[in-house]
Amino acid sequence: MPSTDQPVPFTADDYRARMTRAAESAEAAGLAGVLVAPGPDMVHLTGYRPTAETERLTLLVLRAGHDPVLVVPALEAADAERAAGAPALTLRDWTDAANPYTLTAGLLHAKGRFGISDNAWALHLLALRKLLPDSSYASLTDALPMLRAVKDAAELERLAAAGAAADATYEQILKVRFSGRRESEVAADLAALLTEHGHSQVDFTVVGSGPNGANPHHEAGDRTIERGDMVVLDFGGLKHGYGSDTSRTVHVGEPTAEEQRVHDVVREAQEAGCRAVRPGVACQEVDRAARAVITEFGYGERFIHRTGHGIGVTTHEPPYMIEGEEQPLVPGMCFSVEPGIYLPGRFGVRIEDIVTVTESGGRRLNTTARELAVVE
Amino acid sequence: MPSTDQPVPFTADDYRARMTRAAESAEAAGLAGVLVAPGPDMVHLTGYRPTAETERLTLLVLRAGHDPVLVVPALEAADAERAAGAPALTLRDWTDAANPYTLTAGLLHAKGRFGISDNAWALHLLALRKLLPDSSYASLTDALPMLRAVKDAAELERLAAAGAAADATYEQILKVRFSGRRESEVAADLAALLTEHGHSQVDFTVVGSGPNGANPHHEAGDRTIERGDMVVLDFGGLKHGYGSDTSRTVHVGEPTAEEQRVHDVVREAQEAGCRAVRPGVACQEVDRAARAVITEFGYGERFIHRTGHGIGVTTHEPPYMIEGEEQPLVPGMCFSVEPGIYLPGRFGVRIEDIVTVTESGGRRLNTTARELAVVE
Repeated sequence: MPSTDQPVPFTADDYRARMTRAAESAEAAGLAGVLVAPGPDMVHLTGYRPTAETERLTLLVLRAGHDPVLVVPALEAADAERAAGAPALTLRDWTDAANPYTLTAGLLHAKGRFGISDNAWALHLLALRKLLPDSSYASLTDALPMLRAVKDAAELERLAAAGAAADATYEQILKVRFSGRRESEVAADLAALLTEHGHSQVDFTVVGSGPNGANPHHEAGDRTIERGDMVVLDFGGLKHGYGSDTSRTVHVGEPTAEEQRVHDVVREAQEAGCRAVRPGVACQEVDRAARAVITEFGYGERFIHRTGHGIGVTTHEPPYMIEGEEQPLVPGMCFSVEPGIYLPGRFGVRIEDIVTVTESGGRRLNTTARELAVVE
Repeated sequence: MPSTDQPVPFTADDYRARMTRAAESAEAAGLAGVLVAPGPDMVHLTGYRPTAETERLTLLVLRAGHDPVLVVPALEAADAERAAGAPALTLRDWTDAANPYTLTAGLLHAKGRFGISDNAWALHLLALRKLLPDSSYASLTDALPMLRAVKDAAELERLAAAGAAADATYEQILKVRFSGRRESEVAADLAALLTEHGHSQVDFTVVGSGPNGANPHHEAGDRTIERGDMVVLDFGGLKHGYGSDTSRTVHVGEPTAEEQRVHDVVREAQEAGCRAVRPGVACQEVDRAARAVITEFGYGERFIHRTGHGIGVTTHEPPYMIEGEEQPLVPGMCFSVEPGIYLPGRFGVRIEDIVTVTESGGRRLNTTARELAVVE
């Protein structure tokens, strides 16, 4: 049976459900509504992505018990009407002669407190505040950080497809030559494979060989990979609008006993992190579970970042698996579990899967072998 | 003598002068300082363009009498240090463990009023306001709209080079075939020519043939251009970081008397607009001068947009040549003068040059013939 590898398109009903859930969550959080700017929030809630972000106001207004309203420049209204979520909202367009802030303010409770997209422009926020001096605002990171965190079935399908594409990329990269080639060449292979497997956008292709692997923010450089190197691979991007992100650490030739031991510790930590995933558990417990293993083996000081981050229409969003994050896990959340150990000047190890929360626990969206692979 | 066509690089002194002028303008406008976000403001003032805009705070703080300070994530500090303007400012980097807002708030007067880049994220503005509840903020469009409007000699050189490249593009597009080809094909020719003439970015390539020309926001579509069509061409982008933007209207074959007359009116209006440019004249006078000609000939209702917009590190910025804009022109300002007449269902005409203000009047940066050209 031929497969076109195209996901079932999101419907207006999908978007209606997301907008309704967002408005209800806002109400539950004591907000009078949510103001959504162009960018990931708007893509998630409406499917609409304006061709450019300009000084002309485009803003989605969500309020519990009201139909969603998209305020949009008249010139862009035809574009907005073509968005998959458009049938689920009311379009209010404005011409250059009109004041879009007056129009928007008319939709808002004058003394309300509103959540607003992190990336909304100061220009727009200040103009609204001027018209409604008794209103107040909180960024969605503060007020409603989990707005996009719970994925519906159609989104999970896309995240799984993106994960499968990243896994296929990893299987193939194991077969390429590492020794004698520059990190940047292997990174280019990763990018080409992700694209071949349907990614429309490659966000990162980390190839951290030898001492470079000890810097978790190293991307890929001119260093020539040598026999005996540990190599951290961490790659991902967007496929059909949803993110992939996976890491494996490989070894060029046979590892030393110490390299194998460090890798084993990270693998056990990653297992522990994944095992901690279940509904109702606080995000920080996932971090603690992974960190406990690494600490137990004496490498606690060498695990220098949080354990994970959410993924969806971006490759980096809430929820964060970090000490202090008490948000309970909810079925449908998707995030990375990616502990690591970094030995400055020597090497690093990181293992990462995307995990989604189900009623019965965590389900990995990356399923390639996590044993230390030996490459040429 | 060989020319590399590379402009003289901006120096740290250029950026220092711009930052000093910005801080002084802010003080004169009653502001305690200016908060500059990544984007065109930061490029103009520091030459720094972060590789990505994220939730991690990057902010330039300008205050009269103080050295400029760039708050930057530690991971990006090395990048920021390489910016041409870096020697003219103090870098204050912060790690994930630190609070960048506390750091930034420490630089600000607790009860000050600050101008902030239009495109600064609401996330950052709200976090600062929370720490400094007695501070207040205004978008730079409101508080200091002319921040980037006056160009220095090195910027004017780049704008002139971008204009010359657009002019060369126009000279060459006159020689291509129009009739029997789709608008989108001619648009692709324009894009290729702009690139060939050194543009790193093509922002728009309007090809509005026949009735499509009557919609000033039409870009280029599937319509096949026919003999007898008027065709509005409006194209530009960035070359060496500075913008071009020019329009000419051409005719496929010989024009009718009416087409020629409408074109003559627009040409006279454009001349009148350019002639109105001199230091001290309000922006709206440029609009009025062009509009008066069109109105005199009975087409006032058919000139449905403002006469012009500024240009610099973007192709669309203050000052605006529009009724109500009382900002006086200052030597070094650069903007378009682009009146048009739009006859719905029939055709449109627009003629546009970039003009810079000199002590003695306006100087055009586009100098191709403004007569109605006949193309094949």
